[in-house]
Amino acid sequence: MTLQAISWDDASDSLRLLDQTRLPGDTAYLSITSTDALVDAIRALAVRGAPALGVAGAMGVVTAMDEAEREGWGEEDLQSAVDRIRHARPTAVNLAWGVDQVRPLMASGRAAVLAAARRVAEEDEAANRALSRLGADWLLARIDRPALRVLTHCNAGALATAGWGTAVGVIRELHARGRLEFVYADETRPLFQGARLTAFELLDAGIPHAVQADSAAASTILRGLVDCAIVGADRIAANGDAANKIGTVGVALACRAAGIPFMVAAPWSTVDLDTASGADIEIEERSGEEVTIQAGVRLAPVGSPGFNPAFDVTPASLVSAVVTERGVVEPAQGESMGFTGR
Amino acid sequence: MTLQAISWDDASDSLRLLDQTRLPGDTAYLSITSTDALVDAIRALAVRGAPALGVAGAMGVVTAMDEAEREGWGEEDLQSAVDRIRHARPTAVNLAWGVDQVRPLMASGRAAVLAAARRVAEEDEAANRALSRLGADWLLARIDRPALRVLTHCNAGALATAGWGTAVGVIRELHARGRLEFVYADETRPLFQGARLTAFELLDAGIPHAVQADSAAASTILRGLVDCAIVGADRIAANGDAANKIGTVGVALACRAAGIPFMVAAPWSTVDLDTASGADIEIEERSGEEVTIQAGVRLAPVGSPGFNPAFDVTPASLVSAVVTERGVVEPAQGESMGFTGR
Repeated sequence: MTLQAISWDDASDSLRLLDQTRLPGDTAYLSITSTDALVDAIRALAVRGAPALGVAGAMGVVTAMDEAEREGWGEEDLQSAVDRIRHARPTAVNLAWGVDQVRPLMASGRAAVLAAARRVAEEDEAANRALSRLGADWLLARIDRPALRVLTHCNAGALATAGWGTAVGVIRELHARGRLEFVYADETRPLFQGARLTAFELLDAGIPHAVQADSAAASTILRGLVDCAIVGADRIAANGDAANKIGTVGVALACRAAGIPFMVAAPWSTVDLDTASGADIEIEERSGEEVTIQAGVRLAPVGSPGFNPAFDVTPASLVSAVVTERGVVEPAQGESMGFTGR
Repeated sequence: MTLQAISWDDASDSLRLLDQTRLPGDTAYLSITSTDALVDAIRALAVRGAPALGVAGAMGVVTAMDEAEREGWGEEDLQSAVDRIRHARPTAVNLAWGVDQVRPLMASGRAAVLAAARRVAEEDEAANRALSRLGADWLLARIDRPALRVLTHCNAGALATAGWGTAVGVIRELHARGRLEFVYADETRPLFQGARLTAFELLDAGIPHAVQADSAAASTILRGLVDCAIVGADRIAANGDAANKIGTVGVALACRAAGIPFMVAAPWSTVDLDTASGADIEIEERSGEEVTIQAGVRLAPVGSPGFNPAFDVTPASLVSAVVTERGVVEPAQGESMGFTGR
């Protein structure tokens, strides 16, 4: 069994989150029993990754219902709490998607909502395993090597999902087939999700890897040290433009320059057909102190502000493949996400 | 007067280095009186930046001569000490260049070597001021804005030179002319020269700026937030390929995609006409722990190695302009460095 970052804990009958801000040093879990605690955990990135946020959104509705019951809230307060969860982070479409999966069932009671939320988690892991197989097939059909050398950015692994992972899922699948040679994991400033989380997962799975500065990615790619890049996504627009962790578009530019595939691996829930293109995606800007202060130590002098966009948008023209559980779409070849795969 | 990172201190009659590993927290100076101490300071990056290393190489010969006198070394030991200084870091051509500027004078005695080494420093600052004017002229002739928004990577400032700076020198020149709007300084992992040093210099000079993660550079450029990028170089090959801090080629790729100028600003001493192209430049690989451990805190789990190339090579085709004190060369237009400027 792979790592489980988010689940409904039967013992305490509450939402259980692995506190990812404390990895790799500590493996500690949070028991979430209020809307405020959940919104804080989402904002602090204790839970992060688009698919995991989808599960958090869905299970969070149960948390809000329990709180409403306990606090004697009326319907309006409850719906407002659910809305707060839904909007806790602007770029992550899955958070809203997860809430919306279960919200219509609120009238049917807690048991129905919880069952639906659990289904969101189960279906996410199943989708990840399916898209991982499709992604591995697509890459192996195009790259003539016994085993692949892969670059990944940020963490789109078991820790970012209900289980197994998306980009790391494709890597796991290649590894399981004996077709994975090595992974370069970008450390992913400013919060080091690559160094802390992806490395943690790869080590746990026995996958050979190294951690590199994000700024090394372009050179590693141009020097021919990798065969492809595989990343996750926080939102994919109808035309194939993909929003993902800041730094992703730089990886895509280097892949294009080197002539190697750039793959986005994500569950279909990440695809937002209502968003025509990346121009319509709001880029979350986080506190500049995430950049200028590291572990309490000031890196830049007092008086130098940080600029901290959390995401960037990779244009469809640079995306060789978007793999979801529904199939593979090739935006760089002009296919749009409305094209439902093959 | 701008910051002075390296000088010959008359009071102690020895080489004086600003210990840049302690900035921006502490402004502390090292008094260097042995070859070992100098080589250690160079390897630890207490002194860094191609032109500053040139001065360190030249003044270091005096340090070695003083040590030889004190320790009673023979000629062979002295020459071997000078060679150790010359080769303390493999990629930096200026270190060897600085040594070679003064080495032929060793037979003429210490005073002649010291005078020549001081001249290396004086000429570096003069070259920086000259190339800064030429660089500013070139940019302002091509970018139709009252004041420019500039991105820079790593530190090619007063701290990297004998004074004034190269890339930061061009920025200082634009600022002095009232033609500088804003600077985005890449933080420059793993050692944060951008956050620690460039921000320190910009703040000191009253230049509006923000520090961003290196991974934000591509997106900042593609979003149209900057008008050009200006970086330094550690070595420039005859064809215009430029070795500089890891991450530079990613900035260049993004500038090309956005259609904005990518300028390399460096003294002519950085140009190595004996190196035909970037393929002949050895890339220094530094300890992986610079990536996996930050300020004593482990970022990646034990068992996850770091991959840490210190430099990358930007191909000439992506370099809009190389500005030296001899003029501007446009490698992307097919000009080679043998073309001595205009």
